[in-house]
Amino acid sequence: MERWERLTYWPLIIASVVFIAAYSWQVIFDTEGLRFTLARLAMLLTWLVFAVDYVVRLGLARPRGRWFRRHIFDLLVVVLPALRPLRLLKAITVIHALQRTAGAALRSRLAIYGSGAALILIWISALAVLDVERPAPGANITTFGDAVWWAFVTITTVGYGDFYPVTAGGRIVAVLLMCGGVAVVGVVTATLASWVIEKAAAHSENDSAEPATRGQVRDLSAQIEELAGRLGGPADPKP
Amino acid sequence: MERWERLTYWPLIIASVVFIAAYSWQVIFDTEGLRFTLARLAMLLTWLVFAVDYVVRLGLARPRGRWFRRHIFDLLVVVLPALRPLRLLKAITVIHALQRTAGAALRSRLAIYGSGAALILIWISALAVLDVERPAPGANITTFGDAVWWAFVTITTVGYGDFYPVTAGGRIVAVLLMCGGVAVVGVVTATLASWVIEKAAAHSENDSAEPATRGQVRDLSAQIEELAGRLGGPADPKP
Amino acid sequence: MERWERLTYWPLIIASVVFIAAYSWQVIFDTEGLRFTLARLAMLLTWLVFAVDYVVRLGLARPRGRWFRRHIFDLLVVVLPALRPLRLLKAITVIHALQRTAGAALRSRLAIYGSGAALILIWISALAVLDVERPAPGANITTFGDAVWWAFVTITTVGYGDFYPVTAGGRIVAVLLMCGGVAVVGVVTATLASWVIEKAAAHSENDSAEPATRGQVRDLSAQIEELAGRLGGPADPKP
Amino acid sequence: MERWERLTYWPLIIASVVFIAAYSWQVIFDTEGLRFTLARLAMLLTWLVFAVDYVVRLGLARPRGRWFRRHIFDLLVVVLPALRPLRLLKAITVIHALQRTAGAALRSRLAIYGSGAALILIWISALAVLDVERPAPGANITTFGDAVWWAFVTITTVGYGDFYPVTAGGRIVAVLLMCGGVAVVGVVTATLASWVIEKAAAHSENDSAEPATRGQVRDLSAQIEELAGRLGGPADPKP
Repeated sequence: MERWERLTYWPLIIASVVFIAAYSWQVIFDTEGLRFTLARLAMLLTWLVFAVDYVVRLGLARPRGRWFRRHIFDLLVVVLPALRPLRLLKAITVIHALQRTAGAALRSRLAIYGSGAALILIWISALAVLDVERPAPGANITTFGDAVWWAFVTITTVGYGDFYPVTAGGRIVAVLLMCGGVAVVGVVTATLASWVIEKAAAHSENDSAEPATRGQVRDLSAQIEELAGRLGGPADPKP
Repeated sequence: MERWERLTYWPLIIASVVFIAAYSWQVIFDTEGLRFTLARLAMLLTWLVFAVDYVVRLGLARPRGRWFRRHIFDLLVVVLPALRPLRLLKAITVIHALQRTAGAALRSRLAIYGSGAALILIWISALAVLDVERPAPGANITTFGDAVWWAFVTITTVGYGDFYPVTAGGRIVAVLLMCGGVAVVGVVTATLASWVIEKAAAHSENDSAEPATRGQVRDLSAQIEELAGRLGGPADPKP
Repeated sequence: MERWERLTYWPLIIASVVFIAAYSWQVIFDTEGLRFTLARLAMLLTWLVFAVDYVVRLGLARPRGRWFRRHIFDLLVVVLPALRPLRLLKAITVIHALQRTAGAALRSRLAIYGSGAALILIWISALAVLDVERPAPGANITTFGDAVWWAFVTITTVGYGDFYPVTAGGRIVAVLLMCGGVAVVGVVTATLASWVIEKAAAHSENDSAEPATRGQVRDLSAQIEELAGRLGGPADPKP
Repeated sequence: MERWERLTYWPLIIASVVFIAAYSWQVIFDTEGLRFTLARLAMLLTWLVFAVDYVVRLGLARPRGRWFRRHIFDLLVVVLPALRPLRLLKAITVIHALQRTAGAALRSRLAIYGSGAALILIWISALAVLDVERPAPGANITTFGDAVWWAFVTITTVGYGDFYPVTAGGRIVAVLLMCGGVAVVGVVTATLASWVIEKAAAHSENDSAEPATRGQVRDLSAQIEELAGRLGGPADPKP
């Protein structure tokens, strides 16, 4: 299992990049004929890579039922192509091996993951909405630049209303993007709140009302230890 | 009292489902004649179920005044039909019996309740706004698809402005939905903040500045206990 | 000083109510002639009440410079009539004398204050924006109903764009309302976060990793006390 | 290094002010001819001041590579003129020397920094968007008043849609402003959450379930110390 995951690490990330590139190329340049076939072929290939990886891992997993329940997201990646680029986030995990210092590390990792996920979400949503809206009559999102602008306006929940989807497909993409937006705002706020709360506790000078620290209790423990050591020889009154 | 609540548990949930189904049917298909009468009848029946349940529970309650004050929401459910489907949230309570592991359980329950309440709120608001707006002159929310899309755009506080209510009734529904949106964003952020703060504390390696844990104090207590035990026989200098 | 504050407590609250009533009457019914004069007179009177109260309290205060710096808000209330109704929030302080149970009390008080301030802000903003916008050419906020609807859409940061101020005065009111909206969202989220974090800590069953409690340390202290008591007579080996 | 930083402290702040003044003058009055040249010259001069400061500090730094990595923001200030006014925030650091009382100080500093950064961001974004949009065909942001109003509507994520950028340059400015808006909402909420959580812990009366404080552990330590002192002379049974 672990060997397979090491083996497929880079191929899966490359497949994600190929998928984004092929989908972007197809949608942005609105390709037809041979080029369209090529782009579809590349996307089909990445699907095969993800599907084979899923089947092999399901085959290797013990107990299988539990693995299945815990990897619903991996199944969704196979079924829903739009989720595939999120695999790229795994490539970022390389970074967090570099630094390991408590809360700060978690927060910087959250910031990197959060902004990475937001950018991928914006890019894919812009492609998907353009793909769905362009042929629709009365659509106002018709160029890729407008679609990216619309995605930014939507994920930040600003919503000017200069561009908006008019088809059912485009609106489903928009709803997912809005939910992503609420999550992004939540992650930003939560990360900041964790930082403020930690700093507010650390900056205090008269800290008697602050929570007791583990270090303090360890000092206390050492103090009692020393007392116990002395008690070991209470016959000697002047140690 | 408890027997009555066990007895009415499923009937009330079924009444909620019947209410949603009948109201959806009436509004979406804009039924008239016999079908309209049938839908109204079903809704009247669910009202009777909730009203009888409220009256019986008020009758059984001791002391009655206190029960009344603590169950204002149940009275509102009887008076305001739109709140009735929120009863469905009670059906979800079955889930949280399955898992019990501190903060994680609370957060997953909050996530399930929050998204459940948000979806019910979106569905009911879309029905209510369509019901009120459709006959109004100059209204732009005239199909159920548009109403659901409008509800999503409103609850996430995006607000494109491609659809908006123009009647007093529709605007009251919208204000409730917006308040729901602020609450949903708040719950998402609060849940994430709780998770980040917990993880930031747990991931720390040099943890001397972290709050002391209950486990640490218990260890300390055991250490003193041991010391006291040894003191019980200080006559024996070499234990 | 304290006697003066007790004495002026109700007069100031009544002055706030009179101010809101007179301003609402003047703006909503767009009164002219005698009625306009009467409304202006009532508003002038409330201004006198607040101004006299401020001057007397400044006169009684010791040291005066410090009181002045700490009561900038009271000065603003005298200068800016629109802030006057916020005085009503003081009337709510009566409520929190009823219940006193730690975090829960603080949170419920925050919820009451927050929603009270939000409602007053919405009402006053709707009046002010209508007052400023109505005579302007090209304005779209021209009835009180639309103004209240606009205020709700703005404070929740939804911003459909069906109504928006076009004059400099109206936009200043809008900016204050938006800042109020950001604060309201912040207070809702912060209150929920405090609740989630407290509950997440309390619901834990294996609590060894939870912060040590004050109760635990007190038990520890009693344990050591008992040990010290026993040490008082170490000559007696079997206590 | 430190001497250089003390020496350049005020010149850099003055350069920031000059930059804002010159840019505002150029954009707002849409100057041409000699005045335009003068404004450009002043902006070029501030660029020189920042560039020289950066080069000198890079030359003085030891080890240079680490300083470079830690001062990427200072490089950005030289390359991107729009970031230059953020230097003004440094002038506010003078304030926090006045008060030093734990969490409250951190929160008030965050409030001052946050609102300062928000105001500078709004002003610069309004100038930049006006500069880029005015000559574009079909643009709707054409006066400075509208640009400032648009910036407020955008940073609070209200987004009425009465004004919005239509050029690529204007949209890039808008995206940065929206990200700033999400950050501002996050900082406000995080600061409020820190305050609510601290107060909720402090207001509690039955505090046995609150986290143990450092003061408590210090008292405990003193208690054990006293015990150890008594043990030093266990030969004397009645101390």
